[in-house]
Amino acid sequence: MLKLYGFSVSNYYNMVKLALLEKGLPFEEVPFYAGQTPEALAISPRGKVPVLGVEQGFINETSVILEYIEQTQQGPALLPAEPFERAQVLALCREIELYIELPARACFAEAFFGMTVPEAIKEKTRAELLLGIGSLARHGKFTPYVAGDSFTLADLYFMYSLNLALGVGEKLFGLDLLAELPKAKALLGRLNEMPNAQKVEADRLAAMPGFMAKIAARK
Amino acid sequence: MLKLYGFSVSNYYNMVKLALLEKGLPFEEVPFYAGQTPEALAISPRGKVPVLGVEQGFINETSVILEYIEQTQQGPALLPAEPFERAQVLALCREIELYIELPARACFAEAFFGMTVPEAIKEKTRAELLLGIGSLARHGKFTPYVAGDSFTLADLYFMYSLNLALGVGEKLFGLDLLAELPKAKALLGRLNEMPNAQKVEADRLAAMPGFMAKIAARK
Repeated sequence: MLKLYGFSVSNYYNMVKLALLEKGLPFEEVPFYAGQTPEALAISPRGKVPVLGVEQGFINETSVILEYIEQTQQGPALLPAEPFERAQVLALCREIELYIELPARACFAEAFFGMTVPEAIKEKTRAELLLGIGSLARHGKFTPYVAGDSFTLADLYFMYSLNLALGVGEKLFGLDLLAELPKAKALLGRLNEMPNAQKVEADRLAAMPGFMAKIAARK
Repeated sequence: MLKLYGFSVSNYYNMVKLALLEKGLPFEEVPFYAGQTPEALAISPRGKVPVLGVEQGFINETSVILEYIEQTQQGPALLPAEPFERAQVLALCREIELYIELPARACFAEAFFGMTVPEAIKEKTRAELLLGIGSLARHGKFTPYVAGDSFTLADLYFMYSLNLALGVGEKLFGLDLLAELPKAKALLGRLNEMPNAQKVEADRLAAMPGFMAKIAARK
């Protein structure tokens, strides 16, 4: 059986978890907090979550795990078979990851964990976030899903990146990043109502107090 | 015929260009400097290079373009067919991009273009680069190629990211990032000697004065 290493507070972990749930695949969740210990680095080369454990070994990097699942497992397809359409979905995933999630991530410490992020980094995040949202507005379809008429990997990136980026935008910059994208905002609401997404969210909320205690202990 | 939009100074452009050359595919190079103009954003949603022009439209994001070429075109395979091995190559690509190229990129302006990068960003880059190199040391095989015994997409990321990251490490931090990885250093030398890599490098050098003039005009 597939093993999913990570923890329920991680947004990347939750992308893979929802993919597995939507495909109806059996999997075991293995608590793994990553980090830079030798034990963690033997599972994840950069000490990150999630990691997928399969018969042959470990697979790291969310984008790679999601494609591997797509290529090897049963269940509803989350990527189109036609190469050009597939490329559009994957490009949307990369755009959300590189131009929205990663800039926002540089400010998670201040937005969510009571720490302070240097002004230079906040300025960079603000500028990049606005360009990233512009990119999503141009390339995203929202008819009704991010890449068109069906739920794809791009929706996973969207729902588990935008929620955090919106928090950063609001808390640090007083911005509503989706103010001019009502269709995207409506989609986010609908995605969050999916039964499997509600299960992922319930697990996240249940894990949050333990996670915050870990963060507090490290400060 | 495939059209490759971009410019010869871009390291991501050169990853795709070398892939096309190694596969022996015909393609047309279309000069495209990207940016945030409406014309550029109609080709590339985030205003970046490279972009691949195909019959159906444009494909952006290097990782996506490389997989699309792999999936649809003839020539020597740059990804293993077996899903687990394929995932290992793709994970190495992502690790090099996310944990080495992107942190280094945050400091290109100071390392290569005579501008100044805030200290907070340099400190972040330094810490992340060291962790990224550690990840490459653990996951890379260098036997003799990055992912094993054949040339893959991971070698493209390696050769066109490490060269720039090494420049950042040396110029800004006085560090030789590959000091403890002699096999990686030797591989970089061998990759740079590939005939098609020498062609890409000659084109880069020829384009550099024009590119530097553009940068100077924007300062």
